[in-house]
Amino acid sequence: MSEKVFSLKQDRLLEGRVFRDPIHNYIHVDYGIFWKLINTKEMQRLRRIHQLGGACQVYHGAEHSRFNHSLGVYEVVRQMCESVALKEQLSEYDQVCVLCAALLHDIGHGPFSHAFEHIFPIHHEIYTTKIILGHSEVHDVLKSYDEHLPTDIARIIDKSHPHQILIQMITSQLDGDRMDFLLRDSYFTGTTYGKFDMNRILRTMRIFQGQLVFKESGTQAIENYILARYHMYWQVYYHPVSRSYEQLLGSLFLRVRDLYQEGYVFKKDISLLIPFLENHVSVEDYLRLDESVLQYYIASFQDETDSILSDLAYRFLNRHLLKYCDLKTPKRLAQLQALAQEKGYPPRYYILTDDQKQVPYQYNMNDDVNEILILKDEKLYPLSEVSEVVYAIVHSSRSKRDTKVYYPQEIINDL
Amino acid sequence: MSEKVFSLKQDRLLEGRVFRDPIHNYIHVDYGIFWKLINTKEMQRLRRIHQLGGACQVYHGAEHSRFNHSLGVYEVVRQMCESVALKEQLSEYDQVCVLCAALLHDIGHGPFSHAFEHIFPIHHEIYTTKIILGHSEVHDVLKSYDEHLPTDIARIIDKSHPHQILIQMITSQLDGDRMDFLLRDSYFTGTTYGKFDMNRILRTMRIFQGQLVFKESGTQAIENYILARYHMYWQVYYHPVSRSYEQLLGSLFLRVRDLYQEGYVFKKDISLLIPFLENHVSVEDYLRLDESVLQYYIASFQDETDSILSDLAYRFLNRHLLKYCDLKTPKRLAQLQALAQEKGYPPRYYILTDDQKQVPYQYNMNDDVNEILILKDEKLYPLSEVSEVVYAIVHSSRSKRDTKVYYPQEIINDL
Amino acid sequence: MSEKVFSLKQDRLLEGRVFRDPIHNYIHVDYGIFWKLINTKEMQRLRRIHQLGGACQVYHGAEHSRFNHSLGVYEVVRQMCESVALKEQLSEYDQVCVLCAALLHDIGHGPFSHAFEHIFPIHHEIYTTKIILGHSEVHDVLKSYDEHLPTDIARIIDKSHPHQILIQMITSQLDGDRMDFLLRDSYFTGTTYGKFDMNRILRTMRIFQGQLVFKESGTQAIENYILARYHMYWQVYYHPVSRSYEQLLGSLFLRVRDLYQEGYVFKKDISLLIPFLENHVSVEDYLRLDESVLQYYIASFQDETDSILSDLAYRFLNRHLLKYCDLKTPKRLAQLQALAQEKGYPPRYYILTDDQKQVPYQYNMNDDVNEILILKDEKLYPLSEVSEVVYAIVHSSRSKRDTKVYYPQEIINDL
Amino acid sequence: MSEKVFSLKQDRLLEGRVFRDPIHNYIHVDYGIFWKLINTKEMQRLRRIHQLGGACQVYHGAEHSRFNHSLGVYEVVRQMCESVALKEQLSEYDQVCVLCAALLHDIGHGPFSHAFEHIFPIHHEIYTTKIILGHSEVHDVLKSYDEHLPTDIARIIDKSHPHQILIQMITSQLDGDRMDFLLRDSYFTGTTYGKFDMNRILRTMRIFQGQLVFKESGTQAIENYILARYHMYWQVYYHPVSRSYEQLLGSLFLRVRDLYQEGYVFKKDISLLIPFLENHVSVEDYLRLDESVLQYYIASFQDETDSILSDLAYRFLNRHLLKYCDLKTPKRLAQLQALAQEKGYPPRYYILTDDQKQVPYQYNMNDDVNEILILKDEKLYPLSEVSEVVYAIVHSSRSKRDTKVYYPQEIINDL
Repeated sequence: MSEKVFSLKQDRLLEGRVFRDPIHNYIHVDYGIFWKLINTKEMQRLRRIHQLGGACQVYHGAEHSRFNHSLGVYEVVRQMCESVALKEQLSEYDQVCVLCAALLHDIGHGPFSHAFEHIFPIHHEIYTTKIILGHSEVHDVLKSYDEHLPTDIARIIDKSHPHQILIQMITSQLDGDRMDFLLRDSYFTGTTYGKFDMNRILRTMRIFQGQLVFKESGTQAIENYILARYHMYWQVYYHPVSRSYEQLLGSLFLRVRDLYQEGYVFKKDISLLIPFLENHVSVEDYLRLDESVLQYYIASFQDETDSILSDLAYRFLNRHLLKYCDLKTPKRLAQLQALAQEKGYPPRYYILTDDQKQVPYQYNMNDDVNEILILKDEKLYPLSEVSEVVYAIVHSSRSKRDTKVYYPQEIINDL
Repeated sequence: MSEKVFSLKQDRLLEGRVFRDPIHNYIHVDYGIFWKLINTKEMQRLRRIHQLGGACQVYHGAEHSRFNHSLGVYEVVRQMCESVALKEQLSEYDQVCVLCAALLHDIGHGPFSHAFEHIFPIHHEIYTTKIILGHSEVHDVLKSYDEHLPTDIARIIDKSHPHQILIQMITSQLDGDRMDFLLRDSYFTGTTYGKFDMNRILRTMRIFQGQLVFKESGTQAIENYILARYHMYWQVYYHPVSRSYEQLLGSLFLRVRDLYQEGYVFKKDISLLIPFLENHVSVEDYLRLDESVLQYYIASFQDETDSILSDLAYRFLNRHLLKYCDLKTPKRLAQLQALAQEKGYPPRYYILTDDQKQVPYQYNMNDDVNEILILKDEKLYPLSEVSEVVYAIVHSSRSKRDTKVYYPQEIINDL
Repeated sequence: MSEKVFSLKQDRLLEGRVFRDPIHNYIHVDYGIFWKLINTKEMQRLRRIHQLGGACQVYHGAEHSRFNHSLGVYEVVRQMCESVALKEQLSEYDQVCVLCAALLHDIGHGPFSHAFEHIFPIHHEIYTTKIILGHSEVHDVLKSYDEHLPTDIARIIDKSHPHQILIQMITSQLDGDRMDFLLRDSYFTGTTYGKFDMNRILRTMRIFQGQLVFKESGTQAIENYILARYHMYWQVYYHPVSRSYEQLLGSLFLRVRDLYQEGYVFKKDISLLIPFLENHVSVEDYLRLDESVLQYYIASFQDETDSILSDLAYRFLNRHLLKYCDLKTPKRLAQLQALAQEKGYPPRYYILTDDQKQVPYQYNMNDDVNEILILKDEKLYPLSEVSEVVYAIVHSSRSKRDTKVYYPQEIINDL
Repeated sequence: MSEKVFSLKQDRLLEGRVFRDPIHNYIHVDYGIFWKLINTKEMQRLRRIHQLGGACQVYHGAEHSRFNHSLGVYEVVRQMCESVALKEQLSEYDQVCVLCAALLHDIGHGPFSHAFEHIFPIHHEIYTTKIILGHSEVHDVLKSYDEHLPTDIARIIDKSHPHQILIQMITSQLDGDRMDFLLRDSYFTGTTYGKFDMNRILRTMRIFQGQLVFKESGTQAIENYILARYHMYWQVYYHPVSRSYEQLLGSLFLRVRDLYQEGYVFKKDISLLIPFLENHVSVEDYLRLDESVLQYYIASFQDETDSILSDLAYRFLNRHLLKYCDLKTPKRLAQLQALAQEKGYPPRYYILTDDQKQVPYQYNMNDDVNEILILKDEKLYPLSEVSEVVYAIVHSSRSKRDTKVYYPQEIINDL
């Protein structure tokens, strides 16, 4: 536990502020530090970046922003901190750190991150750290409270913090981030898949042997959460039309990069993209890019003389997405490539493959801190041992995989 | 498909009637026959029989009746009949039959059926048939429309009807009965476990090769339904406190039967129970028994001189339920029996064991018509082949089993 | 504020208990005293008394009990006590008192109270006091904590307590009782009429000048609550079919009383009703009567030789309710009475009038403590001055009134 | 009724398409014409225009687009057409017209319309007509079906169509547009204010004497709707912070216009705004402007040398909104203007007044077709005669009015 002295008392707002939230009812902001962070330009910029990229092309309700989600993660983590089980075991300083981390965990996300980071050598995680530690309004707010705050928060987010509990609250198999986005994305898409009983899960959360664990009585709520996650992936995040949109966007960025490297002269100004094309991106450059900028650029690409770029831009803006089919054999791919080439659609930009895989519960996690632990009769067990459903899923020899190939409808019409 | 001629047109109500329903919003009654059935005394009697016996001792919201649920099953089946996929493939006569079957499928249920049928040699299924075919207001209503109606409806309910689809709509792994009770019990208990996307499931329902099947696009909604069922069983239906209540009730009925057989003279009138104690129960006798009668009897048992009966009755009415623990070894049972005997609590009535087992999805079903079939590229596959989650569960070597022993707290207090 | 010393600390349950509740999600029981009260036989008896009498004949979902509602009021009042505004201004002893009052406020309700108290000279308020102060498990639990508890709680319920705030939390225009029953009855009936934003109202609650008041920012939530109340009265509580059921029940009790006074010999045992017929009802007698007893009696009345009683009982149990029309002129009533007399239906039991009146917001309240007060710039204003909507309603020259006459359909059929 | 022959049968989609919608569950698209309209670039452009301008600065959930809402209005109107009462009284051609009108009623909306139209002489209603009748993908789709379609649809939207019912379905006191936006905005903001029972209202809708009317049994659902509307206006649409955002945006546009008229040379390209500044806007110019364009421009304004423009742009993007207070006396306004002038904030751009007025139900409507009519005993009555609540509100001498003045916090800080 941190030894730092940090008093929140004098930072308490005279009248607590609330944000009305469709998921958590209210988001409670009782201290000046969080209010100031929310009002930084870096946080406000997240209003101009959608939480779900392609999915709102399928689920029109899902137009919510990363700002929206960031407030939600903060509220979930705040509720964790308020629970009896954690309140007494975390110092006030650690609570402030983890709440700031919740609010800021997505601060480095750029516009259309998935497709964008596929083409440009950018990692939003790195920019999250840079923004917190470097020149930013966020950094200034944090430092005005305590000079160690920026570092400690960054270490929670990049998982190098010595206090495991704090990391697990933000990034683990069952953390504030995942719980909020499943509930939130489910609400805005209008699907029922992502619903689970978060209240019950939070009620059964405990700290035991330096880990965040869950009492056995929460097992079924957690099983529901695992299934909710699995279903949201397939119904929403990996929906073939969402992926079609992401693929198209990737092709468009690829064409821009190729043209730039070939020395093509763009008719319209693309100055905010230059640092990315030159692979020399300052934090300031990075923060200037949001989805309204890229949407504006893409709209202007419709007037470019390069017919590939203008076609891709038109398709993107007006939802003339690529069609898709299961990619069952390499031969199928070759056929489509040949056909596209013949019809004047360069396969590099128009024949796109996408492979997705998702198991309902990951036994060996690569991106997560560790497995979900269940507390039963004062001992810890991995979820997959306690839950028949999760056990069955983990020991299944099959896992769901989906490989699709995307192509313009035009090349098939004449068949 | 039935050849019988039966015209609903002239039976259409001038102004359709609706019941406001918390689950399905409205229950639509557009024809006289259904309205008349609902207003028979046999249907109204179901208002005096709870849908869930012991569960409302744990979940205080779950005080709803079988009448409540019966209307719900009718509405689900009505929506099935309204769907394009079924509307054109079922004759009007068959639609009336299956809707009546939906309304009447629980008409033979008695008070506290689970515990009651455990002690008395009664099967509610048999009385359902008897009520439909015998002397009853229900029978009279049906016969006034068509003399074959009672038989055809009874055959849907007892699964002997030649038209498989009609049976599957009422009794199968994914039928109107189960869909309604999961949603309804979930709503009234206030749990989230039983929720699933019924709309989506109904939208993907098709008739194919004479079977009720589901399009592949419904798979994930069905997976959710399977898990909802699994969780409702463990959280609600098999909750140890619910079972404690059922066990206590069983003991109470057992004591009544034992006393009667011993020639004990009851202080208060128990005339409505006599036919059951004599094992000679007419339909009329059967219908006179409802939960208000049994509750009244049990209240009066508190004044009986037999101390076991009066104690069990007091415990039942005032929720002094038995305590429970996992039954891990036969030795534990023997210990408790000895202890109870010693303290003056005859083990026959006070040491009770209960064993429950539930797999999330039954591969070999004994009480269901058949497996859920998924329609994919014009072929049928069992759900467990199409769904990774169900596959995993079915092929798991483990299944959840729970054996508990119930005992009076008093025998332990002195330990 | 009370000077009594009373420590809850040692009464705190090691592991807090919760009831899953469909309205408030969880009902939190953290202290032994509340847990013990809930498990008294007087509280458990409320499981056998419906919250809404006749309304479940119209809204089949509304089968919930007064036990159900009593837990809810407790939870609303608990949330009031937890709010910052109240927590610091109420002593621990007063908090316990008001929470017990919340739990016990309906303890004196009998079966079908509305119709029953119309015929028998019983007032449930008086029995509430008697049960709390007299021989009962409830009384014993309270006294074991503090000898003043029973009296202080009774005084909150009968509005004679010196601390106004405590009374207002249970009985006022905007109290825990009304808030819970509107939300609860709305949920179980499945109507949307009774919904309002309780969270917001609780958030704006303050203590100011010794009164329970509401900040101006809660005005619109309160307007919604006022309208919700108005609509629930007309759509649910005063629904003509609900009233038909109550009227029928009243007639039935009247016939029983008339027969008893005439010396009629009942075939079946009605011993539990005798004290009421003799107008000499002890607390013990009172508590023995619940709805299962009355339902059982009514069922047995079907076999009585008195044809009026057996007919009324048959109608009641099998929902052959009386028809109704607006009573526009006294002449209409006389006509129906003559017709009934002629057809052999004595008007005393078969021609029944019922008059209901409800204004959306009462300016001069007779049964409530006082008007809702709004706190604005450190001054108090009556709601009707602050709210344009309530102002309009209060100053309207019209109020809704509904007078119906009920009669057996049979007397009209031949017209 | 229209005499035109127009067959939908051949346009029916083989497999009906659905959009998952959080408000109406599914949006059903069963005919090719609607599917093609949804996929025009004019409809897709509405994805880049928010439904609520300033409100998402207060309610972060309210980030939904006009595309989202347009699908919703279509679905409400589709449900109206499906109801028995209307289905038989509207020709197939009229149904197609009104459904297209529902989908297209907002097609002429521009970015931030409220503030934008305040400064530039643009009326979105006029562009709606121009888009439907002029060169557009929408027009081409419509004309390919029937050459009269564009005109007939435009006449429904501009209220010149001879068939009143069609107009009332889209634009009246209780139309598809209002019902959808209240429910939708309520859902996305997370408030409960806008909820009402649309199902019930639609069920009581009838055509009577050539008008769209409502059966008496719908009165209370309509009262709820009226109050929902009133509350949404004050809690969401007229929220002072929403209005602050709109005011700031208005000032910003005003500064751009002033600078342009003064001949100021903008550093960055603003070519898409030129037609608006020159007051010579073609449909094509109009359609090019969406919110991503304006957001991009505003971001670039931060770098302009004009300090007023760059300050307003910075405030807008980073939510440094203006403060506000009630404008009680003209003197207060003069004071603030003087103070602002003194501190270097030209009052023309920094001291802004805003006046809003809303009555719960308009008796004399200026922008609506007519009052809500209630059908009772085969006669029509205005809602305000049938509803006590609406009567009270209409006859109230008071109406809610709110005048605010907005100013930069900086001018007050030094006081």
